[in-house]
Amino acid sequence: MLHEEKTMTSTTETLSNPHDATSVRLGLAQQLAETLLSERGEASGAFVARELHGVMAALDAADRHGFQRYLAAGFQPDATALRTAAERYLAEATAETAAAVAQAADPPRQELLRRMNMAPGGTAALIAMRSEIAARLRDEPVLKLLDGDLKHLFSSWFNRGFLELRRIDWQSPAAVLEKLIAYEAVHEIKGWDDLRRRLAPDRRCFAFFHPALPDEPLIFVEVALVEGLATSMPPLLAQDVDEAVARAQAARADTAIFYSISNCQEGLRGVSFGNFLIKQVVEELKAEFPQLKRFSTLSPIPGFRRWLTGQLAEAGTSTAAVASALAQDGWWNDARQSEALRPVLMRLCATYLTRPASAGNRIDPVARFHLGNGARLERINWLGNTTKRGIAESFGVMVNYLYDRDSIEANHEVYARDGTIVRSPDVEALLQTH
Amino acid sequence: MLHEEKTMTSTTETLSNPHDATSVRLGLAQQLAETLLSERGEASGAFVARELHGVMAALDAADRHGFQRYLAAGFQPDATALRTAAERYLAEATAETAAAVAQAADPPRQELLRRMNMAPGGTAALIAMRSEIAARLRDEPVLKLLDGDLKHLFSSWFNRGFLELRRIDWQSPAAVLEKLIAYEAVHEIKGWDDLRRRLAPDRRCFAFFHPALPDEPLIFVEVALVEGLATSMPPLLAQDVDEAVARAQAARADTAIFYSISNCQEGLRGVSFGNFLIKQVVEELKAEFPQLKRFSTLSPIPGFRRWLTGQLAEAGTSTAAVASALAQDGWWNDARQSEALRPVLMRLCATYLTRPASAGNRIDPVARFHLGNGARLERINWLGNTTKRGIAESFGVMVNYLYDRDSIEANHEVYARDGTIVRSPDVEALLQTH
Amino acid sequence: MLHEEKTMTSTTETLSNPHDATSVRLGLAQQLAETLLSERGEASGAFVARELHGVMAALDAADRHGFQRYLAAGFQPDATALRTAAERYLAEATAETAAAVAQAADPPRQELLRRMNMAPGGTAALIAMRSEIAARLRDEPVLKLLDGDLKHLFSSWFNRGFLELRRIDWQSPAAVLEKLIAYEAVHEIKGWDDLRRRLAPDRRCFAFFHPALPDEPLIFVEVALVEGLATSMPPLLAQDVDEAVARAQAARADTAIFYSISNCQEGLRGVSFGNFLIKQVVEELKAEFPQLKRFSTLSPIPGFRRWLTGQLAEAGTSTAAVASALAQDGWWNDARQSEALRPVLMRLCATYLTRPASAGNRIDPVARFHLGNGARLERINWLGNTTKRGIAESFGVMVNYLYDRDSIEANHEVYARDGTIVRSPDVEALLQTH
Amino acid sequence: MLHEEKTMTSTTETLSNPHDATSVRLGLAQQLAETLLSERGEASGAFVARELHGVMAALDAADRHGFQRYLAAGFQPDATALRTAAERYLAEATAETAAAVAQAADPPRQELLRRMNMAPGGTAALIAMRSEIAARLRDEPVLKLLDGDLKHLFSSWFNRGFLELRRIDWQSPAAVLEKLIAYEAVHEIKGWDDLRRRLAPDRRCFAFFHPALPDEPLIFVEVALVEGLATSMPPLLAQDVDEAVARAQAARADTAIFYSISNCQEGLRGVSFGNFLIKQVVEELKAEFPQLKRFSTLSPIPGFRRWLTGQLAEAGTSTAAVASALAQDGWWNDARQSEALRPVLMRLCATYLTRPASAGNRIDPVARFHLGNGARLERINWLGNTTKRGIAESFGVMVNYLYDRDSIEANHEVYARDGTIVRSPDVEALLQTH
Repeated sequence: MLHEEKTMTSTTETLSNPHDATSVRLGLAQQLAETLLSERGEASGAFVARELHGVMAALDAADRHGFQRYLAAGFQPDATALRTAAERYLAEATAETAAAVAQAADPPRQELLRRMNMAPGGTAALIAMRSEIAARLRDEPVLKLLDGDLKHLFSSWFNRGFLELRRIDWQSPAAVLEKLIAYEAVHEIKGWDDLRRRLAPDRRCFAFFHPALPDEPLIFVEVALVEGLATSMPPLLAQDVDEAVARAQAARADTAIFYSISNCQEGLRGVSFGNFLIKQVVEELKAEFPQLKRFSTLSPIPGFRRWLTGQLAEAGTSTAAVASALAQDGWWNDARQSEALRPVLMRLCATYLTRPASAGNRIDPVARFHLGNGARLERINWLGNTTKRGIAESFGVMVNYLYDRDSIEANHEVYARDGTIVRSPDVEALLQTH
Repeated sequence: MLHEEKTMTSTTETLSNPHDATSVRLGLAQQLAETLLSERGEASGAFVARELHGVMAALDAADRHGFQRYLAAGFQPDATALRTAAERYLAEATAETAAAVAQAADPPRQELLRRMNMAPGGTAALIAMRSEIAARLRDEPVLKLLDGDLKHLFSSWFNRGFLELRRIDWQSPAAVLEKLIAYEAVHEIKGWDDLRRRLAPDRRCFAFFHPALPDEPLIFVEVALVEGLATSMPPLLAQDVDEAVARAQAARADTAIFYSISNCQEGLRGVSFGNFLIKQVVEELKAEFPQLKRFSTLSPIPGFRRWLTGQLAEAGTSTAAVASALAQDGWWNDARQSEALRPVLMRLCATYLTRPASAGNRIDPVARFHLGNGARLERINWLGNTTKRGIAESFGVMVNYLYDRDSIEANHEVYARDGTIVRSPDVEALLQTH
Repeated sequence: MLHEEKTMTSTTETLSNPHDATSVRLGLAQQLAETLLSERGEASGAFVARELHGVMAALDAADRHGFQRYLAAGFQPDATALRTAAERYLAEATAETAAAVAQAADPPRQELLRRMNMAPGGTAALIAMRSEIAARLRDEPVLKLLDGDLKHLFSSWFNRGFLELRRIDWQSPAAVLEKLIAYEAVHEIKGWDDLRRRLAPDRRCFAFFHPALPDEPLIFVEVALVEGLATSMPPLLAQDVDEAVARAQAARADTAIFYSISNCQEGLRGVSFGNFLIKQVVEELKAEFPQLKRFSTLSPIPGFRRWLTGQLAEAGTSTAAVASALAQDGWWNDARQSEALRPVLMRLCATYLTRPASAGNRIDPVARFHLGNGARLERINWLGNTTKRGIAESFGVMVNYLYDRDSIEANHEVYARDGTIVRSPDVEALLQTH
Repeated sequence: MLHEEKTMTSTTETLSNPHDATSVRLGLAQQLAETLLSERGEASGAFVARELHGVMAALDAADRHGFQRYLAAGFQPDATALRTAAERYLAEATAETAAAVAQAADPPRQELLRRMNMAPGGTAALIAMRSEIAARLRDEPVLKLLDGDLKHLFSSWFNRGFLELRRIDWQSPAAVLEKLIAYEAVHEIKGWDDLRRRLAPDRRCFAFFHPALPDEPLIFVEVALVEGLATSMPPLLAQDVDEAVARAQAARADTAIFYSISNCQEGLRGVSFGNFLIKQVVEELKAEFPQLKRFSTLSPIPGFRRWLTGQLAEAGTSTAAVASALAQDGWWNDARQSEALRPVLMRLCATYLTRPASAGNRIDPVARFHLGNGARLERINWLGNTTKRGIAESFGVMVNYLYDRDSIEANHEVYARDGTIVRSPDVEALLQTH
């Protein structure tokens, strides 16, 4: 365990208590930011960065906001230098004059942010900053400059080559496990017992980590090892499974179901990990369980209900019966009502998931992610998830996207080229029904 | 230990043997680089990057060279887009138009290099590439674009916040220890026995590591724990010290001597770590040995002899006797000769180390590093190192730079502001002699 | 990750299902035990031991019982050899004839148990076996031979020199943390949130582990870092403490309170760890928090109520009022009633804790443990614990035992020599009241 | 990193320097040993044990010797108690009276040694003690009691269930690797370069470790991955193999050759690990390289030359030519001489390795080890090792013992039952030659 640099008297300590010192603190933060970017910052950067983070941590919300605006508005490239470089480039466009423009245009803000990263906890603080400004980007366009610079840096720092895939299980530190409970975005984890079930011997959980954030998963995926394609959630979330039974289940499994993928860091939005994660986890699972034959998701369809509701409204009286049946609370618990709705909803869901994207008609976000990764639209499942959220999003319908190692590249190609959605015969058949 | 993605058939395998396939391989590498930067690279980046590195590893020197030129010459920013952005900026210089210029000027090469980093071993391969092109930069200016982009990325990736300080001792893996032997740049390590001595209980060795290069020290420092300021090398390098004696020595020590600092990665030149390293090691040592009172280097003076030789030549006959005495091989082993030379060389060395820098008169590089870090010029040592190299560089003279936590910042300030070199009374006295 | 030996066909597999095979399984277990002790067991011991454990794990309770009786009754020393050795010793008592008796008397059962330990999980299985027979020792004296041999082996295997002290905190694996919840024997841990509070920055938890049981604490102690001597439980168990507040509390603390010590392994009863644990934890805490001045327990007095009830009964009418007051449920919540009882109970508790042990009058077990370790009887605390259990055991009274590094040895000496209980002036004063 | 108990003033410090204090020190060691075994030792055992080891470490050779005799001669079982127990047993031989004898005969020395083990480094010190007395056992029979007790304890403590198999490679700490160089007993490792070759990608090295001796291998085996059965040493010890070539070699290998097995701890002689090691390493290798088909040793025949020389002497003139040819230095480098000797030596070696053991005619120790483990005598190799040692031991002949998982048990059975040595047809054929 190595100790950190503690040299020189700290200017932060003298201000640790006073409550009315906020504007003083904001001023101090600004001054430290300038020092950090100066030549002195080059020599004593790690120390100044630490001081700055100390002051920032003590800012109240208003001052934090002020500091973010200060970062976004200032630290512009030198106008004269950029003008000169731009003019030279326009006079003679060469690789060298282009490079000179790039250099002159590079905002000092990025260098400042890089130096802020030198302090312990710096990376986490910058991620938190980007997370905090997300909500205000629309109203304060100036913050977009800061947001863009942070995103640019994060894309570079959180390069796949620097990420570590780790399996998470009951041997993982509680400090990591509690993050799963906090970050699970698809199927809520209801406390430690539920968590334990998700880490049982017939389950796997993998996450990407970055060395600068050792306890913070960036994204994680939960996998169930089952026999045959899983088509509904309740069996996957059932509690109270015996360890030995689960172990036997894992040994028999021929299919891995990716039933939940959660991004953990709002501050890293736009930096994509999911694609790498699924593909590497497929390899991990294949190595541990050579008998696995099928890798598939069991996914929500978050946009289906909204789209369908729009469709029904447009269609007018011809579908009024459907709309009215769907409006009845609890229809999914009534076999007769449910069976009546099934053919029409299944067909419409197949239509929703395969229709071409167009203006005002965006492709379902989960579909876009998996199809873009090269998965195939495999199966649409009636009432796979009848929780409140499942009904609210998609009338309980779920979908499997299949990751088939042999066709993943070709699927991706055609999807990328012209939006072709590769689908199974089952889905095709649904589309042919009337 | 997690397994890596192995999806999809590899185009590299089919070419693993043929000897006359070089131009084919170069073509393949170029094609993979283009694919990697394309939209397909976005989805299957890690895999394409791996393929590319596989092909690159099989290139011979000529083709490697060709590939580097290819990277440097191509992957320019889009000329139309950059032209448009530049014109807009010149028409109206705002933060937004400046940001648009920066974006348009950002060379795709950087994005390509970031994607090349996604493969296992990618970071190491990029560092090796920059190391390899170093020698050709002068003759092939086009490579400077590649060199600059690599340096830009490395500065961001090897940010202090991502480095880990590790102590290196006899418990370290042999795979790391052998790197010390290979990389020691100041006082050669003569095999494993010599190495062991340098890791004895009265010594410390610390290095910075980056998570993507787990066995590769980036920079390391060797420290001796002694009583009083060490003024010559032989006692520090003496062999055959008993473990228990060394332990007792460490317990008595009041001074830590940094007697060797070596940068390990030629490909990271220009990305500075030394400043952080020394300051953090001072803190580590202080925590482990609270009784330490003094932290100092014992450093070479690589530029002294060249400067002195020039001075003597200019001075002409008045110093002919000195020049002639110095020309006698082995004078340092003859007490009479050596004592005769001592006053004049000591005075001239003090002059050399304290004279202001001027055109054609650069400050000694080791001095610049430590003074820039805020160290004080503490003591000049007669015949501190009479090895062949020590004589060749500085007629055997060595110097101590003192890191005093209380004055380090002030020293740095005045040095940075106007080049003032803070020195001890001892050195001052040497300057006053005639 | 290393793999285990899987050679040779396993006889256990053929019997994994049949339900009526119990007597067959018992017979197989007995046969494997004999093989294991035979010469073949010497060569293929680890494999035979693994088979045996496989069969044992499949035994039902009755057969397990049968197997334990089988182990206890058989595996006697060779009668002829022991007789001969005994006769020789009686004829001529020398070190050699005594050693020959020891060897002849050494029961083969111990060697068998040592060989059973060679399989993975063997140590845990033997501990579980001793735990299981504990309840039947009284009724089946033959099991005492097995119990004694197991205890003998465990005392040797769980030697202090083989134990590892580990700090347990929120970075510990969930698999270890859940054991704390399960094993806490003094102040119940009510789930993960309560656990987290006990591992907050102003708390410490340490446990001994044995390398053969990596996830199983053998004994653990919970410590609170406080200002001044803690005299009642509620402040120590309060929830919802802020991390930063707790950290500040730790920095201010001058006293470490050991408020809970729990043995975890029933099968290791009689093998004592507590003494070592407390003393080493004192050293750990001293190293981490040099400002700590006082190390003390806050302990229950499990035998006080039973003793007091006996005393009151004997005393007859003179104490009838006290007995009747104590019989009122909830008196401890009524300040008037409670204050009336306080002087007499405090005095009697001091008497209870300091009276000499005599036949039928055993010293309180917690007192015996700490006094035997050299702690001092420091303070008796009125209503330190008014939970149901606290009232039931000791009418809510608690006690501090002080571990003072300077007097610990002397305290222990006098206690060991003649039962002298070193006590503070406070306790002495209580004894003088009437 | 946890700290160790440092309570109470240490009696060892006061005596750390005086040179003439030896008898004082011996007296102190004896006194501490008595304290350690006393009731006080029970409470403060770890501390007293530490003091005792401190004093022991400062004893000179004569006093160490004295202390060992003191341990061996004293600490006898209580004579009265043992006499009584023996008489009772003779009066009525029951399991209980036998157990009482065992308890009475159990020498307090064992308990003392167990308590000495409680100090940090205690296990290592006890192993060193047994190693030191080995040479004097013949002349001082009293030491056998101490030796026997140590061996008894070590057999229990170093139970297979407590050992950890670790792979050793270039990632291992130098502190472990240097032990390989020191302990290699069969084919000397000539420094770090030679060591590195033995840890190359086509080699494997595994060792057993005990948690109390983390840097000390107990036994290690070196394995070469080759194609076909290796029949001579030079190819296995050749230097300067390229990493990539070695990796390819490992991928092609169908045979694992165990070419060196070294016990490391003289103090653990008689506690056997080799059997477990080989069998588990076979499983490890099988898991890593499923394509391996054959597991075999390439072993020395240490007793062949001595036996053969005796045979030749007995045989008299009929074999004089052979004896005289063998007496010529360097015959093995002369193809003609060597070929002339080959048939007779090969046949005689087959005879030597397969003849029944008899009084004065012990089976070759290496053969006994492998045959006892269930290996088969597979192949005798002409001039497999012509180093000085190879010629001196066995005229350069070497032997392969084959570990075939399917027959290992049966081979062991027949060898254990009646000494039958299972051999290959090749060896059988050699025996039939004349």
